[in-house]
Amino acid sequence: MKVSELGEFGLIARLAEAFARSGQPSCLVIGIGDDAAAWRASGVQLVTTDTLIEGTHFSLSYVPWRDLGWNALTVNVSDIAAMGGIPEQALLTLALPSQTEVAQVDEFLDGMLEACSEYGTAVVGGDIVGCDRTMVTVTLIGRALADDQGEPLLMTRSGAQAGDAIAVTGYLGDSAGGLRILLAKGATSGEAADYLKRAHLHHKPHLTTGQMAAREGVRAAIDVSDGLLQDLGHVCEASDLGAIVHAQRIPISPALRQAFPQDALALACGGGEDYQLLLTAPPEVIERVKDKAEVTIAVIGEMVADRQQRVRLLDEEGREMAPPAAGWDHLRGATWRR
Amino acid sequence: MKVSELGEFGLIARLAEAFARSGQPSCLVIGIGDDAAAWRASGVQLVTTDTLIEGTHFSLSYVPWRDLGWNALTVNVSDIAAMGGIPEQALLTLALPSQTEVAQVDEFLDGMLEACSEYGTAVVGGDIVGCDRTMVTVTLIGRALADDQGEPLLMTRSGAQAGDAIAVTGYLGDSAGGLRILLAKGATSGEAADYLKRAHLHHKPHLTTGQMAAREGVRAAIDVSDGLLQDLGHVCEASDLGAIVHAQRIPISPALRQAFPQDALALACGGGEDYQLLLTAPPEVIERVKDKAEVTIAVIGEMVADRQQRVRLLDEEGREMAPPAAGWDHLRGATWRR
Repeated sequence: MKVSELGEFGLIARLAEAFARSGQPSCLVIGIGDDAAAWRASGVQLVTTDTLIEGTHFSLSYVPWRDLGWNALTVNVSDIAAMGGIPEQALLTLALPSQTEVAQVDEFLDGMLEACSEYGTAVVGGDIVGCDRTMVTVTLIGRALADDQGEPLLMTRSGAQAGDAIAVTGYLGDSAGGLRILLAKGATSGEAADYLKRAHLHHKPHLTTGQMAAREGVRAAIDVSDGLLQDLGHVCEASDLGAIVHAQRIPISPALRQAFPQDALALACGGGEDYQLLLTAPPEVIERVKDKAEVTIAVIGEMVADRQQRVRLLDEEGREMAPPAAGWDHLRGATWRR
Repeated sequence: MKVSELGEFGLIARLAEAFARSGQPSCLVIGIGDDAAAWRASGVQLVTTDTLIEGTHFSLSYVPWRDLGWNALTVNVSDIAAMGGIPEQALLTLALPSQTEVAQVDEFLDGMLEACSEYGTAVVGGDIVGCDRTMVTVTLIGRALADDQGEPLLMTRSGAQAGDAIAVTGYLGDSAGGLRILLAKGATSGEAADYLKRAHLHHKPHLTTGQMAAREGVRAAIDVSDGLLQDLGHVCEASDLGAIVHAQRIPISPALRQAFPQDALALACGGGEDYQLLLTAPPEVIERVKDKAEVTIAVIGEMVADRQQRVRLLDEEGREMAPPAAGWDHLRGATWRR
């Protein structure tokens, strides 16, 4: 059955039922099906939004609907994680061609509901529109952690201090490597290729790590979505500082090195959609976070007062290197996704 | 200059500056430019979202950018008005072709900022993406009015009671009439045509009327965005009731009667994008609301316990009429916007 046969209101009813089955938070006053959703709130609320457009951000030729549903939520969870917050209510806007199969929408919902369950989030509203291409916008609302006095424990892009260590979770560049393989249409297979493709298709934001870091005193963070050097540049700009990154300390997976021995560093520096967390804090705070984290955390450099040149990349001998790749600019188009 | 020359981050900086100039609410903790926006909240929060897609919801051949910016916000203000709430924080997601002129984006911003100022709202974040067509999603967060005990004063689709009078603000069908004229490409001109076109291009949601109605005790409302009979049907469904509407009481403007003498009733019953408020409440409550409202309010019918046939339209002699037009279904396509 096509979505055009089900109709807009039939589809909304189907979504509402699926989301209601998955449980609603106790603070919810009004969920899907009214002019607005309503919930009881206190303290500092957070909100972020991200849009995925077919042809710009993904192709249905290689992204399964289930992963699309998962990622539509998790790219936003990653933003809340970068603030050290707790995600709560999500809004889903889904633009669909009329010929979309209802079974595909069901798979999308399964993926999104799995992510909702994993990250403690409920869909409370949204919008369904017809379009000649598939687009997904998720708006995610959450709340900040609070200290004993009720003051918010937030990590921001502007919270970095000169002397802070710069740390990142996990490996960088895997998602961009996976996309390269997917775009090559099956040219590369094997364990490393499968791992990299999975890194691109199924993001795993570090929510609990972000919350733990905020509790441990980290005050500056960003999620790496547009490429390490570009996102670190945003922290430098917002904090009015510079940064030094030691290239050999950037965490690169064995799979990425194996699949792209020449370009692994470039992919790690400039590839997008990693959804790792970049944290900056005094070295002793970062050490505590490393000890408590359930993911590996690598210290890759330090924030510096010299802001003439925002982000400097140094090689093993401490010599400055040219940045090996640019990040992603949605209006100019860029490196990996052209 | 094209937006591709300015780039994604140049455009975000331009938006952030424009929105910052227009003032930020005192509850705001973090505005545009971080991974998430943050604000201090208490009580019951509201959220709604609406997307406008070029080719589906509008054509740039007849919608000025300034009106697009105004409407992107006001269609959401209308949803908050229908809950009786107070709009506060907005998120703007803008998808733009790379060849869009920056001057056009500036006009869009002017219109949106004018609406922000009119309705007491601030843009605190969003997303900028490249696309081959223009799309705008606004998510609007607000809060519910509260009574003296701090309990929320909400109007919902499910709050209607049998015996409630059904009332609507302003005139219905003007927007659909205006769209007909716009699509006819200048075929009709004159004062009536200009008035109808303006009704389509520049929505004026009834925010203060919605808030006043909630304070006066109205507990059921919806904004008329998909057509009177369809939206009233949503209230019937959510409240598990039926409705009787007297056709001759439906408020139709002199301009609509003049421009479309044959179809005025059909446009008023089934045309979309009116953004009038439909309220249901005991007749004495509706009388108080009529007395206090700054807009005209017409009582067009009553909610009934008989829910076999959701919405019944009666002619002057009380005989049942066939509904003259269907509302809008975004996945099936429908009446006026095909």
